[in-house]
Amino acid sequence: MNKNNLKTLSTRLGLSISTISKALRDSYEISEETKKKVLSEAKKIGYQPNPYAGFLRNHKSKTIGLIIPNITNSFFIQAIKGVEEIASQKKYHVLIYHTHESEQEEQRILQELTNGRVDGLLISLVINTNIKNYIKELHKYEIPIVFFDRIYTDINTPKITSNNQQATFNATKLLIQKGCKHIAFLMVSENSYIMQERKLGYMNACQKYGIHTHEDLMLKCNTPPDTNVDIIKSFLEQNFITKPDAIFATVEQLALDTYRACRELGIQIPQDIKVISFANLEMANLLNPALTTIRQPAYEVGKQSAQALFNCIQKKTISQEKVIIPSEIIMGDSTQ
Amino acid sequence: MNKNNLKTLSTRLGLSISTISKALRDSYEISEETKKKVLSEAKKIGYQPNPYAGFLRNHKSKTIGLIIPNITNSFFIQAIKGVEEIASQKKYHVLIYHTHESEQEEQRILQELTNGRVDGLLISLVINTNIKNYIKELHKYEIPIVFFDRIYTDINTPKITSNNQQATFNATKLLIQKGCKHIAFLMVSENSYIMQERKLGYMNACQKYGIHTHEDLMLKCNTPPDTNVDIIKSFLEQNFITKPDAIFATVEQLALDTYRACRELGIQIPQDIKVISFANLEMANLLNPALTTIRQPAYEVGKQSAQALFNCIQKKTISQEKVIIPSEIIMGDSTQ
Repeated sequence: MNKNNLKTLSTRLGLSISTISKALRDSYEISEETKKKVLSEAKKIGYQPNPYAGFLRNHKSKTIGLIIPNITNSFFIQAIKGVEEIASQKKYHVLIYHTHESEQEEQRILQELTNGRVDGLLISLVINTNIKNYIKELHKYEIPIVFFDRIYTDINTPKITSNNQQATFNATKLLIQKGCKHIAFLMVSENSYIMQERKLGYMNACQKYGIHTHEDLMLKCNTPPDTNVDIIKSFLEQNFITKPDAIFATVEQLALDTYRACRELGIQIPQDIKVISFANLEMANLLNPALTTIRQPAYEVGKQSAQALFNCIQKKTISQEKVIIPSEIIMGDSTQ
Repeated sequence: MNKNNLKTLSTRLGLSISTISKALRDSYEISEETKKKVLSEAKKIGYQPNPYAGFLRNHKSKTIGLIIPNITNSFFIQAIKGVEEIASQKKYHVLIYHTHESEQEEQRILQELTNGRVDGLLISLVINTNIKNYIKELHKYEIPIVFFDRIYTDINTPKITSNNQQATFNATKLLIQKGCKHIAFLMVSENSYIMQERKLGYMNACQKYGIHTHEDLMLKCNTPPDTNVDIIKSFLEQNFITKPDAIFATVEQLALDTYRACRELGIQIPQDIKVISFANLEMANLLNPALTTIRQPAYEVGKQSAQALFNCIQKKTISQEKVIIPSEIIMGDSTQ
């Protein structure tokens, strides 16, 4: 606040400039009543309290950090909306960080954010995270952390996710019911928790319904996905003993890459091969053909994660809840 | 930094706890040499300087604010990536704010961000902005502001945008060359600068190539777009003297809504009606039919905006440059 504003307030309120300055700095020398009066008048002339000064007094930045791995994935865009909804109700800022699926970036951001810039952290991990190597270090800082979607399980902190294993089981079962017997399974990182869950759902469904699974039906793709169209093309052009009659894409981008690969090879979906994918694309039904998707409750995951984080911040305790929200299958023509 | 850490540093460096504490607070009582020694050792034991304390000393938050109106629009997702690229080179944080196309939200965020939370601001306005009512107030705070894409023209600050008028002219010309004579023009807000530019491009092309324009071919849609599919359906079901043979969608979402409306009405694209749209959708060519798009240089706009902002921050001057980056038309089947 500049001198002119202090003077204006002084004249308006009949208080000394020093008193007003102290009131604005939340000094213990000034009564609560006077502070209220000064702040209310200051607001009228357009004064905004400095958040950093506030932070140093209260250790409250009124900001939460939201770390997402991939801003081009519809799931995360919808999750951001859910987080924003709750944060705005709580009058908190959301500092959005984007790790671009890079472990280095994830580690750098996490270490940087332990310095008091945020009151709490929401994080969905990069697919090849190495967080286990430094999570204990992080935990020492006592900043509340909530994991969502791509969670880390070996830490006592809230985790909000969808039912990856069950949803993959259901979608695999759907393909089997449509007559598919050789279902290719496209992954981006075998070792991540979420991929292991999805692979398990696929394996269980195949086993339960008597479908053989083969190593050569499992395709590991890249992240970032620059070369995945080519990887999928090479995969489909192989000399299979029996050609795959379906593709299960574990992430949205792989379904789009599959569409591109099939188009380039002249393979017809769904006549030659059926396609199903985890995807939160609102325009899935406008694709050619309309894509059958496993739609995760992204907005709800975002909302509940933010809610869990604010519970931790306000109660100053770390809960250990694990919430699993079901996904649903939205039928398109790609599995007809 | 807690007492144990101070003690560790004290033992390691053979300095008093008070000296170390002062060095970490950047006190004038401590020599630069000692400060360096303390900071270097502190780093080894995992200490991160408090950014808010740094801000109060240097008036540098090392953060820029990025205010975008619509996180579901591919243009802004790609622009964010461009901004992040430059900010990360400069070792700056990007605080992403989302106004959800709400004027109230835009005003609230802008007023909040003038309090020192950020060193500079990148903003793309909501479509129905009322920024002119409070921009002078804002300007007093002397925070560098750069406008991008949806710019405000009556203020001396950098503006980075694409060639809206020319791009619309070219796309309208394309439709005319394909034989269209009754081109419907779908807008979201007639009065915004960007819509006026696009409308002008459309009118100029129609005039130049002898195509009559009618008021009943101009359709004003809503934002947020909840009801636009119905609005477009009612529009297409009208008793036109001559039915429209093409739709020009001025924003990505309206093209998707047009696809949905046509599907519900059994209208074939492009046989019954051609469609062209401003859109940065990477999957435009996977739609049914592939959508012809005017692709704006979103990533480049983001990069150049961030660059302009850092120039202002570093030189402590506000430049007045206006940069216009050309768009390109990507052909799909929707205009065949």
